[in-house]
Amino acid sequence: MGWVTNAGAAILLGSTIAGAGPAEDVRAWRKAHEAEIVRELASLVALPNLAREAAPIRANADHLVAMLRRRGMTTRLLEIEGAPPAVYGELRVPGARRTVVFYAHYDGQPVDPAKWHGEPWKPILRDRGLEDGGGEIPMGQAPYPPEARLYGRSASDDKGPIVGILAALDALQALGRRPGVNVALFLEGEEEAGSPHLEALLQKYRDQIAGDAWLLCDGPVHQSRRMQVYFGARGVTDLEITLYGPSRPLHSGHYGNWAPNPALEIAHLVSGLRDVDGRIQVAGFYDDVRPPTETEKQALREVPDVDDALRADLALARTEAGGARLVERILLPALNVRGLSSGGVGELAANAIPTEARASIDFRLVPDQTPAGVREKVEAHLRKLGYDIEHGPVTPEARRQRPRLVRLVWGPGYPAARTSMDLPFSRALTRAVEEASGAPLIRLPTLGGSVGMELFARILDRPVVGLPIVNHDNNQHAADENLRLSNLWDGIEVYAAVMTRVGALWDEK
Amino acid sequence: MGWVTNAGAAILLGSTIAGAGPAEDVRAWRKAHEAEIVRELASLVALPNLAREAAPIRANADHLVAMLRRRGMTTRLLEIEGAPPAVYGELRVPGARRTVVFYAHYDGQPVDPAKWHGEPWKPILRDRGLEDGGGEIPMGQAPYPPEARLYGRSASDDKGPIVGILAALDALQALGRRPGVNVALFLEGEEEAGSPHLEALLQKYRDQIAGDAWLLCDGPVHQSRRMQVYFGARGVTDLEITLYGPSRPLHSGHYGNWAPNPALEIAHLVSGLRDVDGRIQVAGFYDDVRPPTETEKQALREVPDVDDALRADLALARTEAGGARLVERILLPALNVRGLSSGGVGELAANAIPTEARASIDFRLVPDQTPAGVREKVEAHLRKLGYDIEHGPVTPEARRQRPRLVRLVWGPGYPAARTSMDLPFSRALTRAVEEASGAPLIRLPTLGGSVGMELFARILDRPVVGLPIVNHDNNQHAADENLRLSNLWDGIEVYAAVMTRVGALWDEK
Repeated sequence: MGWVTNAGAAILLGSTIAGAGPAEDVRAWRKAHEAEIVRELASLVALPNLAREAAPIRANADHLVAMLRRRGMTTRLLEIEGAPPAVYGELRVPGARRTVVFYAHYDGQPVDPAKWHGEPWKPILRDRGLEDGGGEIPMGQAPYPPEARLYGRSASDDKGPIVGILAALDALQALGRRPGVNVALFLEGEEEAGSPHLEALLQKYRDQIAGDAWLLCDGPVHQSRRMQVYFGARGVTDLEITLYGPSRPLHSGHYGNWAPNPALEIAHLVSGLRDVDGRIQVAGFYDDVRPPTETEKQALREVPDVDDALRADLALARTEAGGARLVERILLPALNVRGLSSGGVGELAANAIPTEARASIDFRLVPDQTPAGVREKVEAHLRKLGYDIEHGPVTPEARRQRPRLVRLVWGPGYPAARTSMDLPFSRALTRAVEEASGAPLIRLPTLGGSVGMELFARILDRPVVGLPIVNHDNNQHAADENLRLSNLWDGIEVYAAVMTRVGALWDEK
Repeated sequence: MGWVTNAGAAILLGSTIAGAGPAEDVRAWRKAHEAEIVRELASLVALPNLAREAAPIRANADHLVAMLRRRGMTTRLLEIEGAPPAVYGELRVPGARRTVVFYAHYDGQPVDPAKWHGEPWKPILRDRGLEDGGGEIPMGQAPYPPEARLYGRSASDDKGPIVGILAALDALQALGRRPGVNVALFLEGEEEAGSPHLEALLQKYRDQIAGDAWLLCDGPVHQSRRMQVYFGARGVTDLEITLYGPSRPLHSGHYGNWAPNPALEIAHLVSGLRDVDGRIQVAGFYDDVRPPTETEKQALREVPDVDDALRADLALARTEAGGARLVERILLPALNVRGLSSGGVGELAANAIPTEARASIDFRLVPDQTPAGVREKVEAHLRKLGYDIEHGPVTPEARRQRPRLVRLVWGPGYPAARTSMDLPFSRALTRAVEEASGAPLIRLPTLGGSVGMELFARILDRPVVGLPIVNHDNNQHAADENLRLSNLWDGIEVYAAVMTRVGALWDEK
């Protein structure tokens, strides 16, 4: 017996009270509906979803609206000029005092079809991972093998979680179990394009969509396959550096030792920014770094150690800072050299002094650093070393007259975010997920990567926590992206637990 | 009236004694034969001449043999398995006590036809340089404008000098002036391919071709357009360095600060090899450097200063070592970074930790450094810094087990050479060229670039001096290679002077 009777209105019919049902009933419901769920996911994954392709991306949004309406949600498209719409849906639950907004995105990374086994937008079900020799199996033939995976662009990043959330609602509806919170979905359409309009969108619709807490349903579970929640994410900003040599390549014999070599000089510049153990050499760079709290330190101690396995997998004989733990390292800001380019190497090497050298860097920021603060400190550091900074195009005349010219081009970037693990919502969420998964939850004070958490926290002023469900080995952003179905099944239980239990746990002392 | 009457035998008929004729008579002869000379050069330049193309390169050799025979020279092809032949020709002069061997090469650099105005092997005559708006003029219509240039692959590097030497012989023959030395030509066929068989060739034919002194007719005159001779050249050896990161590109957010970044590490490695003023930081690197002699220092003081003009031309606001003079800087060894490559920059930059980083370096050596010595010192330096050197291919297993792995691949290389300016031949050559050009000669203790001088000096044990005639702005090795005809005209006079005067001056005190 259900609690939704018709589209567009959520009405509680059943008598079951929130949170009283065991997780097993959700599992049993799922087992009876696996083929249905996979079919719904496959039909969503089959829609090409590049943010820059206006008509196809809008077809995704329309498809999602229909999916949400089938669950009785009130929906609307949140529009900003020049951007794909965000899909917003809300299911108000009688008696619920709070609204939890589930964030996901429906656009996907660009694809290189030549690299795929199969086609990016023709979902295929395989009995196990491709690297384990997985072969195609029929889409509708449930039950599926435990390692079965659905292959297709956005299967895991980030359409899988959307279907998981809706399946959790379906299960509760079928079981007659009422959520303890109002459930809202905010589905972004240009996350993989860098969310260029997200800030404007949140500003514009803030009052209608803020809810009481946000759950980011994006990213993978822990490499140990255990559930994790993340309470923060590093911020990011990037920098392109160019140094200049002679205006044309010079014979390194005739002019070597006289004409400045920009490749050598950029090596000096870059190596002066960071040591080999990751310590950034820019004065004051760590001044704004917020130290971890006691709760965060405790949470870190509880994270399973996968470092040795990762090192073996990645063919790394060592890691930075004397093998310090990954989860601790990402609490610090990082300077990553994304690329170096000057002249040629190997077959392309000529005995010449190159005309310019480029380095591309991304900075990962932690609270309370800001992109503006990083920029200021890095530029002060370079000026102190005698560099003459130019942000605009560099003319031959400038090269002729300014001996220590360096061109810096900064990307926009955004700050880190970190939600306290000690907030009532944070505690409630942790307990709800632990109850559902039956195992201690991994609590990460921060993700190493950057997600737009800070934007939600700053503009909406609500707690924001990440709750990923997909497998870590999902080939996210690459060819053969896939979702391990067992992760989706677990996700449905967890989402259902959050919906039913968080409201009550929120108010506990 | 000539001194050669029939092919294959040089017989002196005229009564003019060696060196007695003024340079003006050679000039007058040349003025009357410009079109002929240009035609002979153009038909030689019209032959495609890549060392790796067996049939075309041999057609060049055959064509040269015919050209030499027309001057009455005894010729032979010097053969080594797998290499283009060297063309050797000799004109024995009755009464001459010594033989001067003129070296040049007839193969050319690879071409990128798309970059040429016109075609590499379809010579075009222009009334001035292309960058000055030069337009095509008829090949046969002498006299030519003073800035006229012949465009085509190898016009200056190095077929022009071959035609200049033969024209000098023609002039002397026509004027009835007898050389004071036996004149030999050694024309290599794979110089631009790195002379891989030259050492074997010289070893094999040493006794037949050594002569008494070698003149390298390759390279350009001074940037001031004044004649120069070079008594040495820097040696060269090159090195490809690879450092390794994770076996696949890693998300710089999730793993940045933990997984080693090879781009950052290669910046540290490279910047530790050399400072920004050119000083090499490898222990003992300068131990073998031979200081300049008093004569060499004096010669350097007399070299015109073109550094400011070069800096302006090359858009360089500064040069290394506080603006020290180019001619002094090239007396020292140099470390040139030819290229850096890792990950991507600009449009190609991804927020990823690259899997490897490469640097390509060439070392320019001075007497008495050797490639083996450089290699030993650089490797000792890297070992001292903790690197674990591998010369062969690197396996994933090696990456997994050897934490400071670096792959080094050395090119073959060769040492520097320097002939004393105080040898009787060196003095005789200097005076002969000065007499012919009517201006003080620029004497360079060394070229910055590397030519195979050391090989001739070591294997043949003869004085080796470079006597270039072509313009410095000849686009050597690039598209639109050209020879300024005025340089060829001057070259003919200088070659004639060397042939007629060096013998007598050699014996003067």
